[in-house]
Amino acid sequence: MRTLYYIPLCAFCRKVRLVLGEKKLDVRLEIEQVWRRREEFLEINPAGKVPVLVDLNQKIISDSYAIVEYLDEAYPDPALLGHEIYSRAETRRLMAWFDDKFNLEVTKTLVFEKALKRFFISEGPDSNALRAGKASLEWHLDYICWLADRRNWLAGDEFTLADIAAAAHLSTVDFIGHVPWDKFPEAKQWYTRVKSRPSFRTLLTDQMPGILPSTHYADLDF
Amino acid sequence: MRTLYYIPLCAFCRKVRLVLGEKKLDVRLEIEQVWRRREEFLEINPAGKVPVLVDLNQKIISDSYAIVEYLDEAYPDPALLGHEIYSRAETRRLMAWFDDKFNLEVTKTLVFEKALKRFFISEGPDSNALRAGKASLEWHLDYICWLADRRNWLAGDEFTLADIAAAAHLSTVDFIGHVPWDKFPEAKQWYTRVKSRPSFRTLLTDQMPGILPSTHYADLDF
Repeated sequence: MRTLYYIPLCAFCRKVRLVLGEKKLDVRLEIEQVWRRREEFLEINPAGKVPVLVDLNQKIISDSYAIVEYLDEAYPDPALLGHEIYSRAETRRLMAWFDDKFNLEVTKTLVFEKALKRFFISEGPDSNALRAGKASLEWHLDYICWLADRRNWLAGDEFTLADIAAAAHLSTVDFIGHVPWDKFPEAKQWYTRVKSRPSFRTLLTDQMPGILPSTHYADLDF
Repeated sequence: MRTLYYIPLCAFCRKVRLVLGEKKLDVRLEIEQVWRRREEFLEINPAGKVPVLVDLNQKIISDSYAIVEYLDEAYPDPALLGHEIYSRAETRRLMAWFDDKFNLEVTKTLVFEKALKRFFISEGPDSNALRAGKASLEWHLDYICWLADRRNWLAGDEFTLADIAAAAHLSTVDFIGHVPWDKFPEAKQWYTRVKSRPSFRTLLTDQMPGILPSTHYADLDF
């Protein structure tokens, strides 16, 4: 059996979990409390981060980018990067958009301040950081609306890793109830379609000790 | 002709330039002062970042990860990700290691504080940040020694994007003269081999206004 070391509210782990789900690959999920810096874990990934995938051949693949590219090469059906070379470039541009830009400006700020900070430094959220994160989130939701208005899925005609990366990050912000869906109807409609996919189910039952998900988090008709 | 929008001391642009050089692809280099947020540039890349490649079909490819994956798909000889699926996963793990971890802990800190900060906020370097960056750099050089001691190139038998990403980041730190090469002989030996490749020549003549490169920067026998 495959094993995925993960943290429930980690957007990068969620991206990998969605890819495994879309490709219908079984996996055993193992929570890794990376902040404990467990020695056996540092041996399999010296970067000390999740996600880490141990595959059916007991090979270790670290870093969400390397894992999703590996899974798309090893299990090409369905293709999640796109078929044509420029579609693949557009999928990767948007995956990097969400994993770098959205992560830095929104996920890291809002989810860290509201949900994770207390685990690391026992401090409450910083209101300036929260304000900046919320403003950036609206800018990103605007961009998602712009894309969703012009394309079937975010990167084009096909459902790809661009949708998966975007939904992985947004789902963590939605968990803490900070997405103003009603102000961004096209983004909401796109997210509803992603959220209804069978691969998404695993994310909707996630629990984090000490944090309750927002009331509509698991609701497909939010 | 292809065009690459870039900044001379940007490690991510250097990664793309090395890939273009290894694949012997002609390119016109165009400096983009991203901090000016030029409207025509934001239209081709709303993330406002370099590198951006405009290819022979006038197609725009943004984000260094999307660009290098695109170039390796479009021009597969020489293959820079590796041939076998697990080698490719290892190459990508290390590329992410340097582009994420090394960038955050070393490049962003040292190169930003010493060379780029004055352009953005007209302030001198922060000595605490410099100290932290130097300590992290030694830890990373240790890891490069560990890899170089066990493998022909960083990711295995072949020269790959792992070597290119590592050298791209290190070369920016070397430009400002902050790599303690003599304390890390295996890393120095590996870097000498990368630096001697014809693809590297373009980096050695780079100039940054107001900053002189370290005396040994362009020297192949440093």
